[in-house]
Amino acid sequence: MVIILKENAPAVEVQALEQYLEAFDLQIKETVGEHMSILGLIGDTTAVDIDTLLTFPCVEDVRRIQEPYKAVNKKFHPEPTVVEVAPGIKIGGGNFQVIAGPCSVETEEQIIEVAEDVKKSGATMLRGGAFKPRTSPYSFQGLRANGLELLEEAKKATGMPIVTEIMSAAHLPLFKNVDVIQVGARNMQNFELLKALGKQEKPILLKRGLANTIEEWLMSAEYIMSEGNPNIILCERGIRTFETATRNTLDLSAIPVLKEKTHLPVIVDPSHATGVRQYVEPLAIAAAAIGADGLIIEVHNDPQKALCDGAQSLTPEQFDNTMKKIKKMRNFVTTELN
Amino acid sequence: MVIILKENAPAVEVQALEQYLEAFDLQIKETVGEHMSILGLIGDTTAVDIDTLLTFPCVEDVRRIQEPYKAVNKKFHPEPTVVEVAPGIKIGGGNFQVIAGPCSVETEEQIIEVAEDVKKSGATMLRGGAFKPRTSPYSFQGLRANGLELLEEAKKATGMPIVTEIMSAAHLPLFKNVDVIQVGARNMQNFELLKALGKQEKPILLKRGLANTIEEWLMSAEYIMSEGNPNIILCERGIRTFETATRNTLDLSAIPVLKEKTHLPVIVDPSHATGVRQYVEPLAIAAAAIGADGLIIEVHNDPQKALCDGAQSLTPEQFDNTMKKIKKMRNFVTTELN
Amino acid sequence: MVIILKENAPAVEVQALEQYLEAFDLQIKETVGEHMSILGLIGDTTAVDIDTLLTFPCVEDVRRIQEPYKAVNKKFHPEPTVVEVAPGIKIGGGNFQVIAGPCSVETEEQIIEVAEDVKKSGATMLRGGAFKPRTSPYSFQGLRANGLELLEEAKKATGMPIVTEIMSAAHLPLFKNVDVIQVGARNMQNFELLKALGKQEKPILLKRGLANTIEEWLMSAEYIMSEGNPNIILCERGIRTFETATRNTLDLSAIPVLKEKTHLPVIVDPSHATGVRQYVEPLAIAAAAIGADGLIIEVHNDPQKALCDGAQSLTPEQFDNTMKKIKKMRNFVTTELN
Amino acid sequence: MVIILKENAPAVEVQALEQYLEAFDLQIKETVGEHMSILGLIGDTTAVDIDTLLTFPCVEDVRRIQEPYKAVNKKFHPEPTVVEVAPGIKIGGGNFQVIAGPCSVETEEQIIEVAEDVKKSGATMLRGGAFKPRTSPYSFQGLRANGLELLEEAKKATGMPIVTEIMSAAHLPLFKNVDVIQVGARNMQNFELLKALGKQEKPILLKRGLANTIEEWLMSAEYIMSEGNPNIILCERGIRTFETATRNTLDLSAIPVLKEKTHLPVIVDPSHATGVRQYVEPLAIAAAAIGADGLIIEVHNDPQKALCDGAQSLTPEQFDNTMKKIKKMRNFVTTELN
Repeated sequence: MVIILKENAPAVEVQALEQYLEAFDLQIKETVGEHMSILGLIGDTTAVDIDTLLTFPCVEDVRRIQEPYKAVNKKFHPEPTVVEVAPGIKIGGGNFQVIAGPCSVETEEQIIEVAEDVKKSGATMLRGGAFKPRTSPYSFQGLRANGLELLEEAKKATGMPIVTEIMSAAHLPLFKNVDVIQVGARNMQNFELLKALGKQEKPILLKRGLANTIEEWLMSAEYIMSEGNPNIILCERGIRTFETATRNTLDLSAIPVLKEKTHLPVIVDPSHATGVRQYVEPLAIAAAAIGADGLIIEVHNDPQKALCDGAQSLTPEQFDNTMKKIKKMRNFVTTELN
Repeated sequence: MVIILKENAPAVEVQALEQYLEAFDLQIKETVGEHMSILGLIGDTTAVDIDTLLTFPCVEDVRRIQEPYKAVNKKFHPEPTVVEVAPGIKIGGGNFQVIAGPCSVETEEQIIEVAEDVKKSGATMLRGGAFKPRTSPYSFQGLRANGLELLEEAKKATGMPIVTEIMSAAHLPLFKNVDVIQVGARNMQNFELLKALGKQEKPILLKRGLANTIEEWLMSAEYIMSEGNPNIILCERGIRTFETATRNTLDLSAIPVLKEKTHLPVIVDPSHATGVRQYVEPLAIAAAAIGADGLIIEVHNDPQKALCDGAQSLTPEQFDNTMKKIKKMRNFVTTELN
Repeated sequence: MVIILKENAPAVEVQALEQYLEAFDLQIKETVGEHMSILGLIGDTTAVDIDTLLTFPCVEDVRRIQEPYKAVNKKFHPEPTVVEVAPGIKIGGGNFQVIAGPCSVETEEQIIEVAEDVKKSGATMLRGGAFKPRTSPYSFQGLRANGLELLEEAKKATGMPIVTEIMSAAHLPLFKNVDVIQVGARNMQNFELLKALGKQEKPILLKRGLANTIEEWLMSAEYIMSEGNPNIILCERGIRTFETATRNTLDLSAIPVLKEKTHLPVIVDPSHATGVRQYVEPLAIAAAAIGADGLIIEVHNDPQKALCDGAQSLTPEQFDNTMKKIKKMRNFVTTELN
Repeated sequence: MVIILKENAPAVEVQALEQYLEAFDLQIKETVGEHMSILGLIGDTTAVDIDTLLTFPCVEDVRRIQEPYKAVNKKFHPEPTVVEVAPGIKIGGGNFQVIAGPCSVETEEQIIEVAEDVKKSGATMLRGGAFKPRTSPYSFQGLRANGLELLEEAKKATGMPIVTEIMSAAHLPLFKNVDVIQVGARNMQNFELLKALGKQEKPILLKRGLANTIEEWLMSAEYIMSEGNPNIILCERGIRTFETATRNTLDLSAIPVLKEKTHLPVIVDPSHATGVRQYVEPLAIAAAAIGADGLIIEVHNDPQKALCDGAQSLTPEQFDNTMKKIKKMRNFVTTELN
């Protein structure tokens, strides 16, 4: 951390600041110049609050040098995290998985039919919303506990591990047969939920918030990991921009950025990112090309009857075609490109 | 709601769409043109899902005409809502209140001292964070339950009603002596929390999300109100933009927009909006000038020792000066300007 | 400027960097720590390119400390700039002016009628677009040279100085009778135009770009001023955000920020910021309350027949009412509030 | 175009609106409902101004149905545009080209050396900035006319067509030996420049603005094409978002969106989009995977001595490696994937 002092700051004010800093276990190095002086703080500055430093009258500005995250930081854990969702179904460290299924669980028939379809096409995990975050209280809110039971039926029928979203830590007991617990974009900074998920062991699929930076996203992962749960899968799902041709803007640059900064696996959700069926395949392929560890794709057996997000769902046939291309691309990238 | 049909859509496809729409209690009016046909849906279209309509092959686009909110809509409830926080302390409908206090409750001494100071200057409610949403798990997370107890002490000592943030519905029992429950920006779309708050009676201070539109904000208020709680105070606290000179960009246009669209009172938080002490006063004054129903301002007796956000806190002396100007401005606006 | 070196950067790499820096007239102060070393560069670092520094393998990060603008910087020119637009019509340094008129000049009758109307209400300068930047090539592009002539007629008829937008330096000869040359938001970083305007003497009204920071805006003013023209009036006209209830989001925080950072006057355009007639007055009043040096407001004698932006234009009657309030507010702020 | 009328709008007001609309050559279809009436306008509504319609008191809202662009619209010109930059060097319609070279032209030696290097690696066009748009007037502004001469030398030496940015229509005579004229992001809505470029015949490389939508971008292309020049290459170069790990956020979704909406070729600039050398290759590969018609990549023989943007430039060796992968990916996509 670097503290830039104001030009001609009185010595007494700088001493007050240095006195304050003594409470932390840090080395302080002062550089005095004609027009500018700086204090370099060396050591673990995680506990030093920038806002407090800025209240000292002698302080012009403060810059944090080190990343504020530790547990999820690749610098300190260079080996990639491999999350084993179920026996033999791993993600990260060279393991690539496709999660597929409907936006919402609707009926037993629907979820089992879709599960069988996507399994046949090569998906290895089943997604399906039981608790649905909707902007409007008048929109379908999901089958809730009942939806979780239907997911379990589909799991029994197909053997596929299930991935579904949680909206409150109070619901955790209902998730005992869920394999991967999803935290949605709107809950990325629901810190109480993150802490609760850090205290249990199931893998977490942590979606990026709609207007959050990669650093904020990693800090949310840090909340989970610092409570004891290292099984975190990041999911890029598009950020809010001024563009209206797609629902959000998929930030594929986030993949190489995350590969550099963290050991956690990262997957891509082209369905929610675009909100438009015909753009799902090209972005899924690009995500595979750029080195994502997996994909999560919406598939519905009857999109016109879907209770939510039908416009972005692939039919099982479309998904089957897309999966063929994803597999070809993944194979090309891992065996021929590099 | 208006459905725009594709040019030359086959009659059979349009019939399929019309059949689907029969399930809703709506009048359908078709306008057929040479290059474009449209269906006008007349009636309550709240239950019609745009995404589903978009999956029909004959549909080019769908436009919602009516606002998707009802309970909070001024069209249906033209009288302004007046929230009575405590006997005689009303907000909305011409009643203006200033809430003040520290970012975080830290010690009994601190919170009582600040409470007495801000009361003397004219604040009528005390704010103070007990549960603190922080980007980093390593930052001070608030005194939590203990902080609520200290707020209650300050309430006893000064008689001021207290306003403090909730982060999980599970904590509701701890809030029984709190007067106004705040929902922070990051929880504006924590729908499970909103529903729980709608089922109880305490007034809610609902902050706008960091990257949310006014319509999304009103939909979150609708979540609370549709569950039965009409005591909602909206709080504009700045939105995320590319500007870096202030922490967020205070959207003062939101005040006249909300005055037109909703009957709910709206207050302004210039402290979190700017993040910079010297900008708090000018924006507080501008908020009073434009017709906000109140303000929420951070005040700390010793900003350099504040455990969070010291850089934006006013000292009691600064707050006293600012309050004098706010009162003058409020008085000018209500008695002379209009 | 502070250069943060990589942990364990080899001495030879750091020497290469220091050798490179020798070319600049700077003092270099090194602070060596266990896990981090920094170089503080003291002196005028305007010519040092951050991108180049980042190419040195030993460099982790570079932070600029000083503002990159000089001529427009209040630190070096603490006295407020007063722009004298015409004899006795000054803006800045306590002088407040309202510019009003139609979006576009349409006919001689229209522009003269509006000019007379707004003059009667207290506006001291006439605005009117002759060259119109329009998103679509099929929208009305303005009367161009002919529009400038009509503005001159209105100036003759009323004695009001005229303010109008330039879209290309090639048009400068046509602007010889214009009093204030406006640079629109889309041309804020048209650097060739800025340079040309810096080489002539007429005052410039420099609008903020749609997605630009205050610092970028000041750098554009620096382009003009560093070429020799100090007569610059900044104009906040709203920035692009996700909000759709208003066309842009007026950033009123920019006023106190600019008052701190620059000596240039700053005015507010509530018409383009909101795009909605009924929000123009409340934001105009708030701008006067927060200390803007003036306003620019669209007024049209027949908004339904306006060739552009009729929806945000006030009628002369509305403008007259709004002006009464603006004057009251300005009077209150300067004589009673402070 | 659909006009939504206000509930209970008086018949006389609606007649006034209909009278106004008679001036346009349109069919008007009215749909009258209990709570809502709409007017559907059928025909070419390009000339109808939405803002003017909104000034009619009976109008609640107006929605444009058809895209506002015609010449660049794929609906009316389904065949892909192929731009022939030089004999045998085509872009679009299945032709893929890589443009490479330094950010700025610096010396004859530099530009010729880089040109030879990138040609050897397979680039078919040379880029190099002569006129440089820089945020600061104190940054290197390019060699200007002299830089164009050096580019011509490199063209003579290598036979590569040259691509370089124009900043003012006044400079057009200097560009007579340039093969592709680039319009930078900051000039995307410099409409006078676009018109001038539409009146000449050289191909235009039109970069997307920093905060512009795809529709606005296509409208800028429409400016050029409607003046007579159909040789336009679009270039996605990242948009401004809140993310700071990359300079901008590359919007790869724009590629499939544009492939659907326009017949114009579109290339990708991963260098300016990321601003970080190590992210250039993965995004270049993803762009090739998603179907871009080409790439523009910054290469410098000595990035540490680059006068601008060194941090994002590849060395010739890095570029050579990246080109091998781009070619493999392009080959895989065109021969095996689809």
